[in-house]
Amino acid sequence: MEAGKKEIAFGIDIGGTNSKFGLVTRDGKILSESSVKTRHYATPEDLIADLYTKYIQVIPEYLDEYQIIGIGIGAPNGNYHTGCIEHAPNLPWADIVPIREIASRMFGLPTALTNDANAAASGELIFGAAKNMKHVIVVTLGTGVGSGIIIDGKMLYGSTGVAGELGHTVIRNHGRQHWTTGSKGVLEAYCSATGIVLTALELAKSSKRSSSLQQIPEADINAKKIYECAIAGDTLCQQAYQMTGQLLGEALANFAMFSSPEAIILFGGVTQAGELLMNPTRHSLEKNLLPVFRNTIKLMYSALPQSDAAILGASSLAWHALLGN
Amino acid sequence: MEAGKKEIAFGIDIGGTNSKFGLVTRDGKILSESSVKTRHYATPEDLIADLYTKYIQVIPEYLDEYQIIGIGIGAPNGNYHTGCIEHAPNLPWADIVPIREIASRMFGLPTALTNDANAAASGELIFGAAKNMKHVIVVTLGTGVGSGIIIDGKMLYGSTGVAGELGHTVIRNHGRQHWTTGSKGVLEAYCSATGIVLTALELAKSSKRSSSLQQIPEADINAKKIYECAIAGDTLCQQAYQMTGQLLGEALANFAMFSSPEAIILFGGVTQAGELLMNPTRHSLEKNLLPVFRNTIKLMYSALPQSDAAILGASSLAWHALLGN
Repeated sequence: MEAGKKEIAFGIDIGGTNSKFGLVTRDGKILSESSVKTRHYATPEDLIADLYTKYIQVIPEYLDEYQIIGIGIGAPNGNYHTGCIEHAPNLPWADIVPIREIASRMFGLPTALTNDANAAASGELIFGAAKNMKHVIVVTLGTGVGSGIIIDGKMLYGSTGVAGELGHTVIRNHGRQHWTTGSKGVLEAYCSATGIVLTALELAKSSKRSSSLQQIPEADINAKKIYECAIAGDTLCQQAYQMTGQLLGEALANFAMFSSPEAIILFGGVTQAGELLMNPTRHSLEKNLLPVFRNTIKLMYSALPQSDAAILGASSLAWHALLGN
Repeated sequence: MEAGKKEIAFGIDIGGTNSKFGLVTRDGKILSESSVKTRHYATPEDLIADLYTKYIQVIPEYLDEYQIIGIGIGAPNGNYHTGCIEHAPNLPWADIVPIREIASRMFGLPTALTNDANAAASGELIFGAAKNMKHVIVVTLGTGVGSGIIIDGKMLYGSTGVAGELGHTVIRNHGRQHWTTGSKGVLEAYCSATGIVLTALELAKSSKRSSSLQQIPEADINAKKIYECAIAGDTLCQQAYQMTGQLLGEALANFAMFSSPEAIILFGGVTQAGELLMNPTRHSLEKNLLPVFRNTIKLMYSALPQSDAAILGASSLAWHALLGN
């Protein structure tokens, strides 16, 4: 490291719609950020080449004060070990994209890759709520349910490089079928935004209660609407979140008896429901733990601002994966 | 380390009935072993003092060739972090027993403690099927169901020191009630020897098929008898193992999507059912994995001889915990 210069990393979050990128300092300050439309680029090389062009336009003004240590990339189905995006259904490119090698070559910088949920967890570890913690489980609750696991202060990638797919663990034997994988009763089928809508619609169909949901066209119902109706006093919508939290708590208890984390951090759009979701989750988590684990786990919200979380998560990999701190 | 001398450790396995102990070499050879009745000792100090007396009788003959590096203790509810046996229901002593401190003081040797299942996993790591592996889950299937988890070549103890209680994770929502914890639908309620008996009895009661179990007094039915009947062609007993394996496979798939292990090792008396249990387990494990994890996990038997496994597991802690190798 050059004496006196502070470290920065370049974070790239590749998404199905937008790819965001930015320069981030070791203490989580975003110096510069922007985004592009992923589908605008015919190949991943085109995307990375354009990001490099944008990078060299902004980097000079920071080089007096900072030195760049590397690149972190978060992408759907990003494999930490292979450095490839593997079979990502919502990206327009080849089935296997060696994105780490492409970026490392074009930028001439050490590069690390992982999937979105692991990037979120890495962001919590380097910049957020998991700072200074050794054992943490981060669960992302958005369109899908993902997870990133921290063991002994390090990200867990496992033998395949893609450990921590807790959204696909079965929590209800022969339960609700997942819309893409076909598996039955997995966590994502219930605790994603999509899952919450399905729960509310099922309740509306099986219940004799009237609900303000009945005045909304079915295609317009989403997790946020259900939250708003719940807060406005709609008991059916309250029950949908109650059931979601109860099931989530059961799953978290199972996870906690695996790694005995000091904290479980919930991240993503669904957590905007706040205590409406957190209360039943916390209650169910504690109830389903063996006594020895009770009151040992903090259930927390993400400490990263949601709009910046993707870039922070991606850039954090540079410190975590490349420098090991 | 003294030049030219090989390392040995003293392993102590404290059980509800017997406590076994012995001197073990780094390559897993037991030089000397014996056992005592645990309930014979009014206090844990009495037990350790007697073991020390026995130890100093045998150790001199080995000191020309070997040097002792420390003590490993496996005990029910042994907490790696605190060094205490905590709330062990089947031991006759105080609720909290600082056994690591007692042994370390009496023997004058560095001492490590963990619970039985973690000791089993540690044994596999140092001497057995997990040697040279980085990510492994060991599941012990005996009177109960326990587990020990290896992450990045190290035992996982988590923030509490007692990580890896996978026998108490829920696999059937509102399922069979556990006989001691009262929890419903946990893995141990189905996949322990006790659980297999309950499954067979439930099948016998709900099925119109005749079964050779009907000729055995209910109190005499155990997992081994059910195995023998299954092998002799009894379809109800075959179904009991089939159901056990199917449920175990589901649980193992959930665990595998947490840490992405290269192997899952099954250990303990129930595994004597061999392929009768392994076949449905393997099938169900693969079926319940996300495609990215399929065919990445070896499902294996323990490589430790069962009669020696407890001493090997306990003594292995000395290398693993005290020397970090």
